[in-house]
Amino acid sequence: MNAYRLRFVPLGGVVGVTKNMYVYELYDGNSLKDILIVDCGFGFPQERELGVDLVIPDISYLLDKTDKIRAILLSHGHEDHTSALPYHYDALGRPPVFSSKLTSLFVENKFQDFKKQIKVNTVEYRKDYSFGGFSVRFINMTHSIPDTMHLIISTPVGRIYHGTDFKMDLTPPYGSSPDFYEMTKAGNDGVLCLMSDCLGAEREGLTLSESVVGQTFEDEMRKTKGKFIMSTFSSNISRIRQCVEAAIKFNRQIVFLGRSMRDNTKLASENGYLPIPFRLVAKEEEVMKLPANKVCLIVAGSQGQYNSALSKLANKQNKNIRIQIGDKIILSSDPIPGNATEVYALIEELTLQGADVVYSDIQEELHASGHGNQEDIKFLIRFTNPRYFIPIGGTIRHQRSYQKLAVDMGYKKESLFLLDEGETVWFTAGKAVRGDTVETKNIYVDAYGVGDVGNVVLRDRKTLSSDGIVMAFLILDPQGKLLARPIILSRGFVFEKKEEELFNKAQQFVEKVLKPRGESVSNMGALKKQVGQQLEDFFFRERGREPLVVVETIEL
Amino acid sequence: MNAYRLRFVPLGGVVGVTKNMYVYELYDGNSLKDILIVDCGFGFPQERELGVDLVIPDISYLLDKTDKIRAILLSHGHEDHTSALPYHYDALGRPPVFSSKLTSLFVENKFQDFKKQIKVNTVEYRKDYSFGGFSVRFINMTHSIPDTMHLIISTPVGRIYHGTDFKMDLTPPYGSSPDFYEMTKAGNDGVLCLMSDCLGAEREGLTLSESVVGQTFEDEMRKTKGKFIMSTFSSNISRIRQCVEAAIKFNRQIVFLGRSMRDNTKLASENGYLPIPFRLVAKEEEVMKLPANKVCLIVAGSQGQYNSALSKLANKQNKNIRIQIGDKIILSSDPIPGNATEVYALIEELTLQGADVVYSDIQEELHASGHGNQEDIKFLIRFTNPRYFIPIGGTIRHQRSYQKLAVDMGYKKESLFLLDEGETVWFTAGKAVRGDTVETKNIYVDAYGVGDVGNVVLRDRKTLSSDGIVMAFLILDPQGKLLARPIILSRGFVFEKKEEELFNKAQQFVEKVLKPRGESVSNMGALKKQVGQQLEDFFFRERGREPLVVVETIEL
Repeated sequence: MNAYRLRFVPLGGVVGVTKNMYVYELYDGNSLKDILIVDCGFGFPQERELGVDLVIPDISYLLDKTDKIRAILLSHGHEDHTSALPYHYDALGRPPVFSSKLTSLFVENKFQDFKKQIKVNTVEYRKDYSFGGFSVRFINMTHSIPDTMHLIISTPVGRIYHGTDFKMDLTPPYGSSPDFYEMTKAGNDGVLCLMSDCLGAEREGLTLSESVVGQTFEDEMRKTKGKFIMSTFSSNISRIRQCVEAAIKFNRQIVFLGRSMRDNTKLASENGYLPIPFRLVAKEEEVMKLPANKVCLIVAGSQGQYNSALSKLANKQNKNIRIQIGDKIILSSDPIPGNATEVYALIEELTLQGADVVYSDIQEELHASGHGNQEDIKFLIRFTNPRYFIPIGGTIRHQRSYQKLAVDMGYKKESLFLLDEGETVWFTAGKAVRGDTVETKNIYVDAYGVGDVGNVVLRDRKTLSSDGIVMAFLILDPQGKLLARPIILSRGFVFEKKEEELFNKAQQFVEKVLKPRGESVSNMGALKKQVGQQLEDFFFRERGREPLVVVETIEL
Repeated sequence: MNAYRLRFVPLGGVVGVTKNMYVYELYDGNSLKDILIVDCGFGFPQERELGVDLVIPDISYLLDKTDKIRAILLSHGHEDHTSALPYHYDALGRPPVFSSKLTSLFVENKFQDFKKQIKVNTVEYRKDYSFGGFSVRFINMTHSIPDTMHLIISTPVGRIYHGTDFKMDLTPPYGSSPDFYEMTKAGNDGVLCLMSDCLGAEREGLTLSESVVGQTFEDEMRKTKGKFIMSTFSSNISRIRQCVEAAIKFNRQIVFLGRSMRDNTKLASENGYLPIPFRLVAKEEEVMKLPANKVCLIVAGSQGQYNSALSKLANKQNKNIRIQIGDKIILSSDPIPGNATEVYALIEELTLQGADVVYSDIQEELHASGHGNQEDIKFLIRFTNPRYFIPIGGTIRHQRSYQKLAVDMGYKKESLFLLDEGETVWFTAGKAVRGDTVETKNIYVDAYGVGDVGNVVLRDRKTLSSDGIVMAFLILDPQGKLLARPIILSRGFVFEKKEEELFNKAQQFVEKVLKPRGESVSNMGALKKQVGQQLEDFFFRERGREPLVVVETIEL
């Protein structure tokens, strides 16, 4: 009699493409024995999350059971699968980390940025690793970055096929095609549940091989009389390598722009993933001195990220390099859902400066998605032949499309679990049922720190961006009596110099609100809140606007 | 030290799509030990092969070694892989025959047509069968007929993957998707040579699943107010079954036309491959009495074959059924190379009678090819990961495209053998080299017999069809002296009654040619030939035509 139970807890990467983090918990009866974590990546904020740089998974749920974490496994080197780790590694109790070679290089480098230390163990394919009650086999998969893996996780209740980001690339430009034997072997031996990348579930056919992009780079480079500028994710080493190879062919000097781009290509280059002849490496400062048709820039920021190397180029903030007529700019990545506005703004800026911008909307071969379309997905399903499914790495729309695909292939709707973040599934021998939900919240990261950007801050930023701010400073005695006239300042609300009267009126209003009550103020917080609300009402009456109102008191 | 050698001898099915027959010979040193034959199908004649019904493989080469033939394996039930067997089985020494269930039913039925007996053994998948020094594992594959197999042939010099007609159908309407595990396992264990269907090597992408056709049938049937008439190969049971299921949905009475169609559907139906409710089975004679929108005809002859059920309908030779305005005719098969002219003539005939004819040129989903496109082929290559390749089942054009595909995937050109009929390849442990060529000739079959239709007959038929025939009968004594006036007749040449003078002149001409020489004719054949040639010249001078001239002598 098997008393083991397995729980799957997605802390991110469901109902969303990024912020991938998946927790597997093995229980013996009711006692939690072992935890295995797969991936720990950051997310891209939504457009409405103003001023937020990143979102990272909420690991609160794990904090009282870090002693059970046997390992963290990283499936591949993309940042939405790895780059939350520096934020959380200490809190998770620094468990052993395992990944493929290139992933380990990227992650160790990322930790250095944070002035932190980590040792990532590199794994061998087709070998079984034990992590408590889990046995994991890492197998070779294809995606838009070399050294991508899928994980076959054997547990006492059954076999899990953890199929993160993939496409079935039969002609990958570097490395081998997927390990079909291990996939089908898992299917033949029996897979209880397939966790599958579902991002391409809406697109028909097979995804283009990564190698078609190389041909496109060559064709475009041949036609380009000006600078050739390619932008993609800085972790897309396969894509970058194909651009470098085209540059070599046309004898263009290669310059990498953007810190992440420089770091990643340096690492990849030093470790054999990106061979570049020394004679073709140029510096940013030399670019405008070279003939334009002898330059190839490879630039970070294809998602229109604020302050990225590409947006600096677009906004004429790069002091060394100017966009000129005849330049060709290739955006070789799909906009991640949520980033579209920024990307199209970027394209407009660049086009206005005379560049010929081509991107995946215009030309299909520019960007072979790293994610499998419907046929890729169907192959994985037939290979692994699972009893249950959990689509991951996609929004609700993608999860639903994935479900439809599986149903069209003859599976029952009930064999698919479409999970939201924190929603769990329990597996017992041969069976799966929905579990309770683990509470998670968004942890925002901005330039100033981690986690101090709550929903309130975001709401404030939204208010600030539309109606500005009014600040009132009150100097009070302990009875709440004003010891001086209230100081009222504003920014982004009305033009103060022309509105002296309004602010005088506001001062008088506050004085009226705070007229002496003859008793000491027991709750200064409540007082501030009260003044704030009344000021909000006041300004709305006076001007029909709702600035953010901040009241601060100083007791003397 | 391994002294074994293996020779692959294609007796058909290369540089051509049909007439599939492949011979594997296992030698110990120079001594032939065992022969294994895969498939024994007929071919479709080329357009120029006038009056020929079929072409079958030339087995002369095997006739002195039939004692070594351990088995004949049939990969699937299509006639170009099975239906030459009744002609050759006795001559091959009646070795044991193995196939899947449906194939065995079709073959045994075919033998009955010939009033011959055969017992076909049905195989189990994933089980090893020994045939002398060969060990064969049969695995499930998808094509346009159920129960299609691929063969993994283990030999003392290495493993051969015999991959005849296939597509990678992930959603076959009936039966399972391909046995990916066994394919990749073979690849993992090591495949010396992949014999692969190459017919789809020119077409991009993945081949459509057979199941899309079912949806098309439904859509078309819904729109059709008249008779619904579907024509395909009578062995395409999957296609036929999908049409039957649509007919059931729309409550149309089903009538099968054509003997092969009736035979095959009866067999398939009796054995569970084609369930048809009794209430929907109608007779040919009843068709015109039923409301047109309650009729579904499933008709043989989609290739425009002479005298087929469909061409009889087109030519108003079916005494029970007329094509009417509003009828819809679906040709659900691609014209086999060589048959295009006939098919287009048929379409024209049917359209003239008021039918709405749809065929694969117009609507893609009408016909999902049974053969894998480029991506299907690439998957098979990656799965089996062979050292050598022999593309089969395609013309030179397809073989070349297949070669290009493999080269684009990183294989060396030299690892592919593009063979013509009878050209052989020798395999020794781990290596392959071209061998000598086995002589083969075309064996034609027409209504009157097997093999008596040589190239001369075909040439004659071509001449007959354009310029007609002239026959001269000479009654001679042993010295070659004419004992009567030459008798000269003609057919299809000129209108004799109006050309009496021409024939008189011809008589005189022959008399002149045969004027007594005073010596006996030692070689009557030479004499006939001489007279014939001179008559040919004579008619060409007189009329500018080149009728077939036949001279016959009677010695008295």
